[in-house]
Amino acid sequence: MTEISLHRPFPAHEVAAWDYETDVAVIGFGAAGACAAIEAAGAGARVMLFERNSGSGGASALSGGEIYIGGGTDAQKAAGFDDTTEALAAYLKLAGGPCADEAKCDLYAAEALDHYAWLKAQGVPYRGNYMPGKVIEPTDDSTLIWSGSEAAAPFCDLATPAPRGHVIQHMGWGGGRPLVDILEAGARERGVEIVTDARAVALVRDGERIVGAVMRIDNQNRFVRAAKGVVLAAGGFVMNEGMRRKYCPDTFRIADPIGDKDDGSGIELGVSAGGDAIHMDQFFTTCPWTMPEPHAKGVFVNIAGQRFINEDCYHGRVSRTAVDQPGGKVYLLLDSAHFEQPPEFARVSIAGTGDTWEEVEAELEMPAGTLAATMAFYNAHAREGRDPLYGKRTPILVPLDQGPFVALELDFQASYFSFFTLGGLKTSVDGEVLDRGGTPVPGLYAAGRCTSGLPAWGHGYSSGMSLADCTFFGRRAGRKAAA
Amino acid sequence: MTEISLHRPFPAHEVAAWDYETDVAVIGFGAAGACAAIEAAGAGARVMLFERNSGSGGASALSGGEIYIGGGTDAQKAAGFDDTTEALAAYLKLAGGPCADEAKCDLYAAEALDHYAWLKAQGVPYRGNYMPGKVIEPTDDSTLIWSGSEAAAPFCDLATPAPRGHVIQHMGWGGGRPLVDILEAGARERGVEIVTDARAVALVRDGERIVGAVMRIDNQNRFVRAAKGVVLAAGGFVMNEGMRRKYCPDTFRIADPIGDKDDGSGIELGVSAGGDAIHMDQFFTTCPWTMPEPHAKGVFVNIAGQRFINEDCYHGRVSRTAVDQPGGKVYLLLDSAHFEQPPEFARVSIAGTGDTWEEVEAELEMPAGTLAATMAFYNAHAREGRDPLYGKRTPILVPLDQGPFVALELDFQASYFSFFTLGGLKTSVDGEVLDRGGTPVPGLYAAGRCTSGLPAWGHGYSSGMSLADCTFFGRRAGRKAAA
Repeated sequence: MTEISLHRPFPAHEVAAWDYETDVAVIGFGAAGACAAIEAAGAGARVMLFERNSGSGGASALSGGEIYIGGGTDAQKAAGFDDTTEALAAYLKLAGGPCADEAKCDLYAAEALDHYAWLKAQGVPYRGNYMPGKVIEPTDDSTLIWSGSEAAAPFCDLATPAPRGHVIQHMGWGGGRPLVDILEAGARERGVEIVTDARAVALVRDGERIVGAVMRIDNQNRFVRAAKGVVLAAGGFVMNEGMRRKYCPDTFRIADPIGDKDDGSGIELGVSAGGDAIHMDQFFTTCPWTMPEPHAKGVFVNIAGQRFINEDCYHGRVSRTAVDQPGGKVYLLLDSAHFEQPPEFARVSIAGTGDTWEEVEAELEMPAGTLAATMAFYNAHAREGRDPLYGKRTPILVPLDQGPFVALELDFQASYFSFFTLGGLKTSVDGEVLDRGGTPVPGLYAAGRCTSGLPAWGHGYSSGMSLADCTFFGRRAGRKAAA
Repeated sequence: MTEISLHRPFPAHEVAAWDYETDVAVIGFGAAGACAAIEAAGAGARVMLFERNSGSGGASALSGGEIYIGGGTDAQKAAGFDDTTEALAAYLKLAGGPCADEAKCDLYAAEALDHYAWLKAQGVPYRGNYMPGKVIEPTDDSTLIWSGSEAAAPFCDLATPAPRGHVIQHMGWGGGRPLVDILEAGARERGVEIVTDARAVALVRDGERIVGAVMRIDNQNRFVRAAKGVVLAAGGFVMNEGMRRKYCPDTFRIADPIGDKDDGSGIELGVSAGGDAIHMDQFFTTCPWTMPEPHAKGVFVNIAGQRFINEDCYHGRVSRTAVDQPGGKVYLLLDSAHFEQPPEFARVSIAGTGDTWEEVEAELEMPAGTLAATMAFYNAHAREGRDPLYGKRTPILVPLDQGPFVALELDFQASYFSFFTLGGLKTSVDGEVLDRGGTPVPGLYAAGRCTSGLPAWGHGYSSGMSLADCTFFGRRAGRKAAA
């Protein structure tokens, strides 16, 4: 008998008896799996949803419950922003950088308003108001925030900016949990059969077609027949060190994986069936350096005392570029008008202080004339409202000239740099898993972070892009599987 | 009948008749395939070698015929260098960076002297002398050159430096062609049956085992039975734009792929059999900026006027880091004591000149106080023999203070940045193709640039590493397949 393996589909003809029979089997109960299940059931299919934990959630439930939506939502309009489909599509492509899937960007942009309406119809509440400023997640239950680099150079020159982070109405951080709760309720209402503590260990193939999966339940292999298809929604591979070593070794520069059981099994299953895993080197990372908010006006330098980014960009883009810098750390420079005690969880330390930037430079043991020259140049132009090097703009652009001064150290290992992987299965806009020749693998679908989707490029990630991708393309995968 | 595809092994039971029968089938006639064939035949196996071109060569024949060898060769000793196995292993690991395969580095270092003796025994001639200085390939028939970043910070502080580029005795550039000619002769002497104009279109599998391949010959599919195994040695994927888009999109920043028929088919065949393709985002690139040699004393800045590398490093490391810089170009700064006309094929242009660095800065339309400040800082320390930012050392470290001054523009698209891919199949030190669980795929072996080997990391590549990898691990793959 063929071995049960993530790396090889199990032959259907060797299945002695099916333990479960359904039309669509969804693997993974985060936002992507929940949306796939809702839509597959809504299309009339029998749906079973398998989750290895004892309940729903996945990495989605660890998130802020923020979804990247634009093109002119009620919240955008109420706040006076004239966002368009075209501007949204353009920004999504910039955010995807060299990894952008243009078809996914265009389709999402075209249907973003419908998707927003769908989310509301599921019961996701939005207060509808706009919270300006640099916030990672709203501190109250506000809806709309700037969640990317839209207003920062070079993005603002290439796509008309608008805030697009739409956050579920929920007090403070952690809106991901209630978001998944609502999606779970929707799945249950539609009769989706949910099986928890069930881990996928193999797909089942009949000829060319994926016809089911082998699930590990109560320490037994259970055979699930899925007449119409299997939807993989099992997350990325941030928790799998072996996979990271092979495909994404730069993540070892930083120390704080964020995820649930994201062990890459969804990707492995897809590849076992002939699927194509792409952009596997890409990862998101961020350090919460904009907290407290005055720190957003700080200046970053590398160990050579050089600036390297427009600090007005999304905190994740700044952090991702920071992690590219040599020497294992960067410094955030602040003056007395802007320094406040950083939050303890950020684990940033004060590496140098001084009444002048020259003194700070000396404390950091940087050669004289490096950091001090950088800051003299920066301040001289900031007073004129210009940043000739990186295009930083007001109100973030202010001179840092009120001593005493401080340099915070963001050490890639010691400080909090959370990260998760972005590479995964190549899928069509309908969630079909594509083989290396570009042909759909019959009966196999995928969504969420076991795919490469809207958030494809670490340097372009913006908050809410992953949940946008999970929910929108999760829905499409479910519909296609049920068709 | 199953379709013939790079993406799926053809079932042996569907093979109506075998057109060829052999013990070991080698696919690809560059250095890796030739060495595999020589060793398999030497071990007593019947060997057939298939090549899609009309003769041997592959990318190996386009190279300089330079092999990275150390640990105390005759040429190293004659030149007064006390290289050791440990120093070689340490450098190989640094050069592999986050992608290093430590087992391959250690084994190669331990056996490098034996491998050198084997190459000589095949008839590869080495004049045995040392040519000092910064040379891409020897201008005459010298043997030993510095071909990496061994003597440059930070490498020199972490591994005892020695020159290790061993070049076949051959006047001027292009030693790769005569190297492959010698290996071809060795294969023919050992009775290897060579079939040219034969393109691999599928592997053949019997149960779990690869037992042959389907070759396209004279516009017909020909079935090759390989009783002991198939060795993939078909090169990288630099000539396959679709694969580059999916796995290595940063290569589109530059414009000059260098390779033969490197279309990734070797990687695709390996993956089709369950093989694991790793570090697919990695690529080598270089611009011949050290030509003429006085230019090696130049200083690189990005569009912000910042230095970004110790320019004493290997030209490829400098070029690879250059391509990371924003804005699509970098500048090489020279003074009148060092500027000479660059070679036409480098396609670098003069972007700015001036009697002072301030004038150059203005011509480049950089903000005042950027490039000029960088050069004032650099020159002040160079006069003291120091480079506090990047650890550049004499004799490369000289003040550039003899006007007039010049800034050469290295545009990533317009200038000559050659590149090839480094990602590929994961193999054991014996050339076994490993599946995603780390288990050898029975009957399948691989070597050369369709694998991830010694040259695994674009930022650490050094000349001769790919041919070292191709010849050494090609030999091992051939021996293992024949065993």
